[in-house]
Amino acid sequence: AEVKVAILTVSDTVSSGAGPDRSGPRAISVVNSSSEKLGGATVVATAVVPDNVEQIKDILVKWSDIDRVSLILTLGGTGFTPRDVTPEATKSVIEKEAPGLTYVMLQESLKVTPFAMLSRATAGIRGSTLIINMPGNPNAVAECMEALLPALKHALKQIKGDKREKHPRHV
Amino acid sequence: AEVKVAILTVSDTVSSGAGPDRSGPRAISVVNSSSEKLGGATVVATAVVPDNVEQIKDILVKWSDIDRVSLILTLGGTGFTPRDVTPEATKSVIEKEAPGLTYVMLQESLKVTPFAMLSRATAGIRGSTLIINMPGNPNAVAECMEALLPALKHALKQIKGDKREKHPRHV
Amino acid sequence: AEVKVAILTVSDTVSSGAGPDRSGPRAISVVNSSSEKLGGATVVATAVVPDNVEQIKDILVKWSDIDRVSLILTLGGTGFTPRDVTPEATKSVIEKEAPGLTYVMLQESLKVTPFAMLSRATAGIRGSTLIINMPGNPNAVAECMEALLPALKHALKQIKGDKREKHPRHV
Ligand code: NA
Repeated sequence: AEVKVAILTVSDTVSSGAGPDRSGPRAISVVNSSSEKLGGATVVATAVVPDNVEQIKDILVKWSDIDRVSLILTLGGTGFTPRDVTPEATKSVIEKEAPGLTYVMLQESLKVTPFAMLSRATAGIRGSTLIINMPGNPNAVAECMEALLPALKHALKQIKGDKREKHPRHV
Repeated sequence: AEVKVAILTVSDTVSSGAGPDRSGPRAISVVNSSSEKLGGATVVATAVVPDNVEQIKDILVKWSDIDRVSLILTLGGTGFTPRDVTPEATKSVIEKEAPGLTYVMLQESLKVTPFAMLSRATAGIRGSTLIINMPGNPNAVAECMEALLPALKHALKQIKGDKREKHPRHV
Repeated sequence: AEVKVAILTVSDTVSSGAGPDRSGPRAISVVNSSSEKLGGATVVATAVVPDNVEQIKDILVKWSDIDRVSLILTLGGTGFTPRDVTPEATKSVIEKEAPGLTYVMLQESLKVTPFAMLSRATAGIRGSTLIINMPGNPNAVAECMEALLPALKHALKQIKGDKREKHPRHV
């Protein structure tokens, strides 16, 4: 695959077997249907972890440093409840923040619902891997991907150090 | 009260007695008139401190950890002058950032005036308390509250760990 | 000069002599043509450094602490390639973040191109100096300045502690 994608469902409920993973399959479907626009993306790994900082960090680091995937999408754990810690786990492993991605996800999500303001999602780069937090709601995954698609392929090429991609408009 | 609110006026001028507190009373009035939409909000504490990091931190920690209020609104100290340190004090006590709240306050405030871009306000969670920086200008308090109202009641329920509130759209 | 401005071109290519500095001269021209709106701005220093954290930090600190310029514009190094480290260097020297400035630059740049979401630009205050990251693209410099102009003169007065500037609308 040109662009290896990994999808992490973060949920106590799903992890414990108390409920089905609705977001993960939806995210796979969104990546597959956007594959071409992402430069040839394939989902190469999926996992489910509870809302636990250490377990989230461990898999983000493994996927970035060992499996060297291009893109990790995390699903869920971005809200205001005491168990929501996905952004904190993500911030502790990224080396560079990508606030523009968070901005456009907020901008687009707020057009759908004011509850989008409760997303604490972050995004950033670790090595040659882009990590993006998305909400746990299955529909929100599609909306956030839609917002990012116009520039995401380009972002993934830049991260790999493609010199031809170095000086696009505005970056 | 269902939702205990505390209001902190941050101002050297007011603290020293050199000028009246115009923002504090306005914020009380805004909370009272939004009480129902906030889930039954009552202002249970108010205070005035100078633009001093340690004094701001001390009262934020007391209100969060001892008095366990649901919501703290700080007023003022978010600008560019050397004395403006409210965001720095706030960042040093919050455990989780809530950038979506800052986003909507900026979005709405910029519709009123371009000077809104000078707000350095932050927002975040400490324990079960939501802390939101608002500008010192009395009118701005009303505008910022207006921007947050569609999701604020929901935010405060989530922070208390209400499971029924755990998986709303987009969070 | 009322308002001393310094412009830092961050680019391996320009620094090594492998290519011309297109952004720097454009930024000088943008500052000169906005001089009055900025309160009497003059470019008092320019420099070119490679995409290297330490070299970026060193000149930002020198211009802030020794030369005490009012405003530093950095150009380039804000994207997603491995060499893009201008935001990281900037964050490590600023004492206060100015997220509202980043917000309006993103807001305006996204009207021109979706690639603007790849800007990781930051902005903040060190002592009495405002440091703003701008993209390396020459046209983007003009667009970002346009977005900031309505409040930038005011920002620079606030940073110097001008009391008359202390309580504008929304700050
Ligand atoms: Na916006």
